[in-house]
Amino acid sequence: MAVGLEPVSELMPVAGVRLSSVAAGIRYEGRADLSLIEFSEGTSVAAVFTQNRFCAAPVQLAKENLQISAPRYLVINSGNANAGTGKPGLEDAKDCSAALAALAGVQPAAVLPFSTGVIGERLPVKKLISGLPELVEGLDAGNWVKTAQAIMTTDTIPKGISRSVELSTGTVVLTGIVKGAGMIRPDMATMLAYLATDALIDGETLQQMLNDTNAVSFNAITIDGDTSTNDACILAATGRSAVALVTDDDNARFLTVLTEVMQHLAQSLIRDGEGATKFVSVEVGGARSIEEAREVAYTVAHSPLVKTALFASDPNWGRILAAVGRAPIDHLDLAGVDIHLDDVAVISAGEPHPDYSEARGQAVMDQSDITISVGLGRGSEAATVWTSDLSYDYVKINADYRS
Amino acid sequence: MAVGLEPVSELMPVAGVRLSSVAAGIRYEGRADLSLIEFSEGTSVAAVFTQNRFCAAPVQLAKENLQISAPRYLVINSGNANAGTGKPGLEDAKDCSAALAALAGVQPAAVLPFSTGVIGERLPVKKLISGLPELVEGLDAGNWVKTAQAIMTTDTIPKGISRSVELSTGTVVLTGIVKGAGMIRPDMATMLAYLATDALIDGETLQQMLNDTNAVSFNAITIDGDTSTNDACILAATGRSAVALVTDDDNARFLTVLTEVMQHLAQSLIRDGEGATKFVSVEVGGARSIEEAREVAYTVAHSPLVKTALFASDPNWGRILAAVGRAPIDHLDLAGVDIHLDDVAVISAGEPHPDYSEARGQAVMDQSDITISVGLGRGSEAATVWTSDLSYDYVKINADYRS
Repeated sequence: MAVGLEPVSELMPVAGVRLSSVAAGIRYEGRADLSLIEFSEGTSVAAVFTQNRFCAAPVQLAKENLQISAPRYLVINSGNANAGTGKPGLEDAKDCSAALAALAGVQPAAVLPFSTGVIGERLPVKKLISGLPELVEGLDAGNWVKTAQAIMTTDTIPKGISRSVELSTGTVVLTGIVKGAGMIRPDMATMLAYLATDALIDGETLQQMLNDTNAVSFNAITIDGDTSTNDACILAATGRSAVALVTDDDNARFLTVLTEVMQHLAQSLIRDGEGATKFVSVEVGGARSIEEAREVAYTVAHSPLVKTALFASDPNWGRILAAVGRAPIDHLDLAGVDIHLDDVAVISAGEPHPDYSEARGQAVMDQSDITISVGLGRGSEAATVWTSDLSYDYVKINADYRS
Repeated sequence: MAVGLEPVSELMPVAGVRLSSVAAGIRYEGRADLSLIEFSEGTSVAAVFTQNRFCAAPVQLAKENLQISAPRYLVINSGNANAGTGKPGLEDAKDCSAALAALAGVQPAAVLPFSTGVIGERLPVKKLISGLPELVEGLDAGNWVKTAQAIMTTDTIPKGISRSVELSTGTVVLTGIVKGAGMIRPDMATMLAYLATDALIDGETLQQMLNDTNAVSFNAITIDGDTSTNDACILAATGRSAVALVTDDDNARFLTVLTEVMQHLAQSLIRDGEGATKFVSVEVGGARSIEEAREVAYTVAHSPLVKTALFASDPNWGRILAAVGRAPIDHLDLAGVDIHLDDVAVISAGEPHPDYSEARGQAVMDQSDITISVGLGRGSEAATVWTSDLSYDYVKINADYRS
């Protein structure tokens, strides 16, 4: 059902990374729901987490542990978010991490927990802990696709990508997997992303790279404006290729590929978004600041009226115009506003474009990939946000989940 | 289909106000779609309009005319919004107003136009103008309910209310009608509200009263966060009762009833909201400012995840908690946060309440009227927002409208 996206079937191993998954019966029957990712000693790890103040127990613990030591193990369960569970939930997360640490022979702080699933129910700690030995035994560098499958919740297909990057002193690999289905929603579809490279990159540089690329990938997508309590994105550099980023050109090449990979993963979430039938890019230019461009883009991307028109393939541009008109930016002069659907001019200098016709608008809206461009005509900054439409299935998935 | 609301069947006439409506064939077949409201000479008129920067031609003209003279006539058409029509649309609105002014023997600026309906299509000026003579002939003080019907678009029932107010020197009447169906959406469901009283109130006082009561009524409801290009609310005081607001007590009494009437009309829009199956009050207290309380209330009220859970009657409080957690206010301390569903405590001091059970939550969610209360525990300000759920029918109405 994903829009223009096939299930990922092959991913390149990354030296220094092993993965495994098992069916621990946390919520689902007969499918893997507990995963482990192992990084070799000396791996640099960068992380970004949800900005939601009600962040879940595993997020709280992962943030704490990152202050103490470099992570060696990520334990990821699907089916239960361990969110809204208060102090007992934090103890549950600690117990599970400690059990894995004991099995693996590392400090508890070297284990980061991740959970995605229903909110407000206690984690089935016994089931989870009893699955850990098999998890450790099963670790293998070839398990990326299996893990992409095991971390799914309402996702319809496993999602991931691998790229190699030629640097001045050798070639490195970058592989990433992601789950989400609805970015970003707090019930069963937290966004979790795990990326690893065998390049040699120090932790500080890696964190900066993650922050920069996150801003134009996972922080530039929206299904419904909701923000999960559990979102996390991890980027690890094992250094096992012994290839470092030596020159400025190396840095630029790696960052370009990292951006592409992050954007592919982020866009995969939209393409496999809950009930999505369209993949929509909202590009806003001519803004005084990037923040202003993003405000307008998000106002259009979050508008239920724009989203239902997209679902209907209806070139109802009045709704786009109305969303731009209510965007929270100061002193917008309509005489500077242009709106395009793909390359079809709809509004020019604030007035209906004379060449626009319903047939031309319809031809764009009939596509599954659509670009809405808005020019504000008052600056040179721009931003792009990717989103999906609002369909019956979105309501169905979100209304029926727990019933 | 409205939630807990019957069609209005009787409304009290207001001395100095006459109304009429005819079927002008603007868009609908076989139903009245063109209305006229006449105020006697000397009537004070207050108005508020959409904040959308792409405000429609009739809104632009109405604002201009209000600067020039006191309105005597309101011409209202449904079926076509005359929005996104550029300068030709403004000429169309002027032509219609001028035609009515000539028939009625007033200055063109004494006529205010209002349009609601599809965006981006030219107003059928000839049809509209040819309906005007019959409109003028049909003017009658008893036509409030008929006019409530004629201004409907996707509304399922006519909506209005009458109240009388006993003041120190006599009794006055206050009658109002409203259409909206989806507050506030730019396609076919602009919000239009018309209220009139025979009390004697000067224009400046009346405008202040309208601003104050609008803030806690029409500006405290949301279906989908979208804002129409055509919204307008008019409050007229004909003075024909010769009863003025003499004492402080008179002022207080009138303002209380005006607030009740405005809130009834605003809540009627939600109860007859597009696809609505629930009427939801989101009450936020313990805030540092009213603005902060409103931000949190709107974040909860706009969350598609909260709204789909409401549609499903699912006590999925994790979604409410997650919405509060992402609300755009600074430094929220979770330890101060309480959440109730009606009187059932869900979250207390940031932790799940020990007495909460799924059965107690379910009992609340099964109702058609539900109150979500959020305490922020950091101040003494509060705000309430009224909203509806997000149903299949919302998507159907908004996706299918033009197809």
